[in-house]
Amino acid sequence: MENKPKSSNTVWHHATVTRQRRAELNSHQSVLLWFTGLSGAGKSTLAHALEERLYQMGYHTFVLDGDNVRHGLSGDLGFSNEDRVENIRRINELAKLFVEAGVIVLTAFISPFRSDRDKGRSLVGEDFIEVYCKCSVTTCEQRDVKGLYRRARAGEIKDFTGISSPYEPPLHPELSIDSDNDSIDQCVEQILQYLIQRGIYKPKQQ
Amino acid sequence: MENKPKSSNTVWHHATVTRQRRAELNSHQSVLLWFTGLSGAGKSTLAHALEERLYQMGYHTFVLDGDNVRHGLSGDLGFSNEDRVENIRRINELAKLFVEAGVIVLTAFISPFRSDRDKGRSLVGEDFIEVYCKCSVTTCEQRDVKGLYRRARAGEIKDFTGISSPYEPPLHPELSIDSDNDSIDQCVEQILQYLIQRGIYKPKQQ
Repeated sequence: MENKPKSSNTVWHHATVTRQRRAELNSHQSVLLWFTGLSGAGKSTLAHALEERLYQMGYHTFVLDGDNVRHGLSGDLGFSNEDRVENIRRINELAKLFVEAGVIVLTAFISPFRSDRDKGRSLVGEDFIEVYCKCSVTTCEQRDVKGLYRRARAGEIKDFTGISSPYEPPLHPELSIDSDNDSIDQCVEQILQYLIQRGIYKPKQQ
Repeated sequence: MENKPKSSNTVWHHATVTRQRRAELNSHQSVLLWFTGLSGAGKSTLAHALEERLYQMGYHTFVLDGDNVRHGLSGDLGFSNEDRVENIRRINELAKLFVEAGVIVLTAFISPFRSDRDKGRSLVGEDFIEVYCKCSVTTCEQRDVKGLYRRARAGEIKDFTGISSPYEPPLHPELSIDSDNDSIDQCVEQILQYLIQRGIYKPKQQ
C-alpha cells in the first residue's frame, strides 16, 4: 500500500481538545498565579498552602518552584543575570502550557526583574495574576530558612537578591500579600477571596 | 513585627498534593506516551485523535508537539544536532512535570535519536511508553503534508530526518504502530487496548 498516500491520515483536525473543553471537564477555569518576592518571603510555602485548599475543593493545580524546575528543565542554567532571564522565560512558557492544559498554575520564584514578569503577563494575557509577597529583607534574613542570607552576607553567594542584587517590586500587582505580618492562613484567605471575585474559585455550599 | 521571625511561615510541609492524590482526584493514573517516527508518519495526528477519545472518557491529557513547544519553550533552538538534543531534553523535563501533575502526556516529535528517547525513559521511569509510528520514507514523502520532503530533496532543508539525517528506530518500543497501512481509528484502538492492559484506560460500561 506504499504507493498511494493515506490521505485519511492527513485531514484530521488537530487539537480538538481546547482549553475551553478542559475547563468544562474540570469545572473551573485555569489561571497563572505568579508569586514574586524575596527569598524567604514565603512564596513557595504560600503556593503549596493555597494548592492544598484548592485541591480539597477539587481544583486541578500545579506548583512550579525551584525544587522541580531548577533541578530539571533549568538544570543547565546558573544564576548570572542572563541565566536568570532565560530561567524565567522558560518558566513563563512552561506556565503557559499548563494554563492551556486547564491547570491552575502557581509559580514560586524570586523573579526579581519587572521586565521578566511583564513578559509572562504578555504571554499569558489576562490570566496572569501577579502575587507580590511583600516582606522586608530584615524579616527574610531573620527567618533565613536555608541559611542563604548568612552565606550571602559572608560573600559566599554572589548576586543575592535583596543583598547584592536588586529586587524590583511589582508596580501594579493583582495581589499584594503582607507576608511580613499576616499568617499563612490569612494570606491564603486573601488570595481565595480574590479568586472568588474573579469567578475562578467557587466555595462549595455547606 | 519585623523583629521576630514568623516561624509559622517556615514549618509548613511542602507539596502535600502528591501525584497519588491527583490520581485520586482525576480517577486515572498519569503516563507519558512518547510518539516517535518520521515527519509525516502521523504522530501528531494520532496523538490528537487519541486525546479526543480520552477526553470523551473524562481523562486529563495534553499533547506536546512542534506547534506548542518549538514556538515557545524551544523558540531559541534551531535544528543542529546539539539543539535537537537540547530540545528533546527540555521536552522530557516538561513531560515529567505534566506526569507529576497527573496528566496523561502525549508527545509528538520525530525524536530521531535513541539515546534522547532513552533519557526520557530514565527520567520518567516505568510510566514512559514509547509509541513507534512505523511508516516508510516512501509513504511519508508521498504524503508530504507540509512540503518538507520536497524542500529537503531540493537541498533547501539540511539534516532532514530520513533524507539527509538518520532516524534510529526504537529497539523495544512498548507499542509499534503500522501507520503505513492502518487507519487512524485502528491505530488509536491499538493504543487504547494497550492502555486497558496497563490498567490506565477503563472503558465505561454501557
